[in-house]
Amino acid sequence: MKIGVMGAGQLGRMMALAGTPLAHEFLFYDTSGSPSVGIGEVIIDKTGAQAAAFAERVDRITYEFEHLPVDAAEQVAELKPLHPSARVLSICQDREKEKSLFKELGIPTPRWQIVRSAKELAKAGETLGFPVVAKSCTEGYDGKGQAVLRSAADADQAWNSIGHDRLIVEAFVNFSREVSIIAVRSEAGEIRVYPIAENVHHEGILRYSLAPAPGLSQAVQDDAFCLMKLLLNELDYVGVLALELFETDSGLLANEMAPRVHNSGHWTMDGAVTSQFENHVRAVAGHPLGDTSPRGYSCMVNIIAEHGDLGRLMELPYAKIHLYGKAARPGRKLGHINVLADTYEELLWRVANVAQFLPGAPEFQCSLHKSTPVRAED
Amino acid sequence: MKIGVMGAGQLGRMMALAGTPLAHEFLFYDTSGSPSVGIGEVIIDKTGAQAAAFAERVDRITYEFEHLPVDAAEQVAELKPLHPSARVLSICQDREKEKSLFKELGIPTPRWQIVRSAKELAKAGETLGFPVVAKSCTEGYDGKGQAVLRSAADADQAWNSIGHDRLIVEAFVNFSREVSIIAVRSEAGEIRVYPIAENVHHEGILRYSLAPAPGLSQAVQDDAFCLMKLLLNELDYVGVLALELFETDSGLLANEMAPRVHNSGHWTMDGAVTSQFENHVRAVAGHPLGDTSPRGYSCMVNIIAEHGDLGRLMELPYAKIHLYGKAARPGRKLGHINVLADTYEELLWRVANVAQFLPGAPEFQCSLHKSTPVRAED
Repeated sequence: MKIGVMGAGQLGRMMALAGTPLAHEFLFYDTSGSPSVGIGEVIIDKTGAQAAAFAERVDRITYEFEHLPVDAAEQVAELKPLHPSARVLSICQDREKEKSLFKELGIPTPRWQIVRSAKELAKAGETLGFPVVAKSCTEGYDGKGQAVLRSAADADQAWNSIGHDRLIVEAFVNFSREVSIIAVRSEAGEIRVYPIAENVHHEGILRYSLAPAPGLSQAVQDDAFCLMKLLLNELDYVGVLALELFETDSGLLANEMAPRVHNSGHWTMDGAVTSQFENHVRAVAGHPLGDTSPRGYSCMVNIIAEHGDLGRLMELPYAKIHLYGKAARPGRKLGHINVLADTYEELLWRVANVAQFLPGAPEFQCSLHKSTPVRAED
Repeated sequence: MKIGVMGAGQLGRMMALAGTPLAHEFLFYDTSGSPSVGIGEVIIDKTGAQAAAFAERVDRITYEFEHLPVDAAEQVAELKPLHPSARVLSICQDREKEKSLFKELGIPTPRWQIVRSAKELAKAGETLGFPVVAKSCTEGYDGKGQAVLRSAADADQAWNSIGHDRLIVEAFVNFSREVSIIAVRSEAGEIRVYPIAENVHHEGILRYSLAPAPGLSQAVQDDAFCLMKLLLNELDYVGVLALELFETDSGLLANEMAPRVHNSGHWTMDGAVTSQFENHVRAVAGHPLGDTSPRGYSCMVNIIAEHGDLGRLMELPYAKIHLYGKAARPGRKLGHINVLADTYEELLWRVANVAQFLPGAPEFQCSLHKSTPVRAED
């Protein structure tokens, strides 16, 4: 089967590496001029005129990037099965639609309001209780198009700096950590879920994902699984879906979802029986899903901005290296290293060993470091 | 780094899949017109005129097939580093040279003689003791160019049927099983060895490889490791080397070596920390080597002639599927399935489950089936 992928970056690259052993071929489609996928053929289409020609050449279509134009997705979906659907894309591109869906399904989130003026913004802050964060409903991602308001006096400046006519305002939540859950649904409606991962960010960029997340009760994990099942079935979803959550004293609160393979699931390439990439391809191609069980304890360490001492990293027997074939650049994700271990204690030690060869990597501080002593089965 | 691969079949395909995450690119070179590699660019060069142009486009060169012309290997080796060397190729293409090297290094083999006429062949049979097997020293592989002689009366017919002017005649050995050992040596001279695998053939084709081979004493494994070390160092070898051995009452006897990644090492893709393909690429590219430790118990099951019921196979959580993107054809290797387990007992059960969906797969009978009851830690 020939699978068309909209977007041609590292996520598409890893899909192709996982899907080739299932005898699938990949064709990439990119509207920007600088694909980094590095394998397979790429159609560069800056005007959008070749979308139909792309669709004609493939059997099924997916995407690695949720900020592609919905009309382009709708256009190709008329020609070939598109997974996940254009409807999913339109929801994930609008924070109001996304949060409304969460509300409708009873998925708990931080409290939020939609505002359409600086005045409404100030009022929403008072209702929710300062500080609050205001975000454009559309177009913003990775921390762009956002502002934190500490009082009503910040409203005018925040409104102007974001420069959108519809914002979502969210209450701050006192969370102990950010976690994410990744699940996959097949065409036949089968659902598999990966163990929840604990995510550590630095300067707005994911740096570490630790899985299975330590210290989560079975009840909390079951709750998260049920939320995913609600979402996947409601959306008649096919493929991998990621959901970011805050862990709070009153349980997990949903932050946002990503309708694609996700950086916080890269650990599955070495730390699970079937990787998120293989399972995404299986779902898109109409196959049964693979086992999502973990193989030991894993931590994914992102390689950001510069490659570090790859020679030394290659000497570490527990470091599985995945490079994206991209040139170094500030803030750019260049690859990741999956660290494997049989216990959490071993994992912490190994991750620290890996991080020392990655310049600029922040010190690894996760929930395990807050418990003294670190317990292997915490 | 751009790595050139001579040959463009499934072994090259799996090298590229393993080497791409290390940010290497691959260019294939094939003198036949039907490459099956399915990924990357292939130079088809039926006349051999483009070998230099191929070498100019890459940084290092390796091969996936040891029956390529030695002069072509020598030609490219003058332009770019070739690993393993052309000398290795010339030895592996001549059974006399290969067995002489084993002898020189003190590596035990079945008894053998070289003959240059039907008369010498009859005499060698008498010296070694019938039955014997006669093989052309060059060009034959996979059971081609061979004949079994039960008495001196078979000599004329065997000589004529093989049709070569120099044959090697080997004594039959009473072996309990065939095993293989795969090792890798880096440019810096570092050596890593994988656990020995037990191989099960059917109609001259490898069907199952079980690793680690059950019931091998540490002493026997250490012996095999020493043999590999002798070979690798003597040949100043860079890359993966496979050695097939017979297990007999008096220890391991070397059968033949293959200067490349090997079908009996495909289990390492899922059953070892670092696959033979990644380690071969690491060696060729001048990197340090990866960990060759096993992850549990593995069995590789070849998919021969037809694909079987892939839908059912994909439902088995312990079956890791690797297809080569080739059309079905009698006797053709179309892919393989790596089966993983935590114990040998579990492995046997799982392999039987997999085999039922592969039409034509012979019943899995290995050394474990001969011990009653099967012991998990045998």
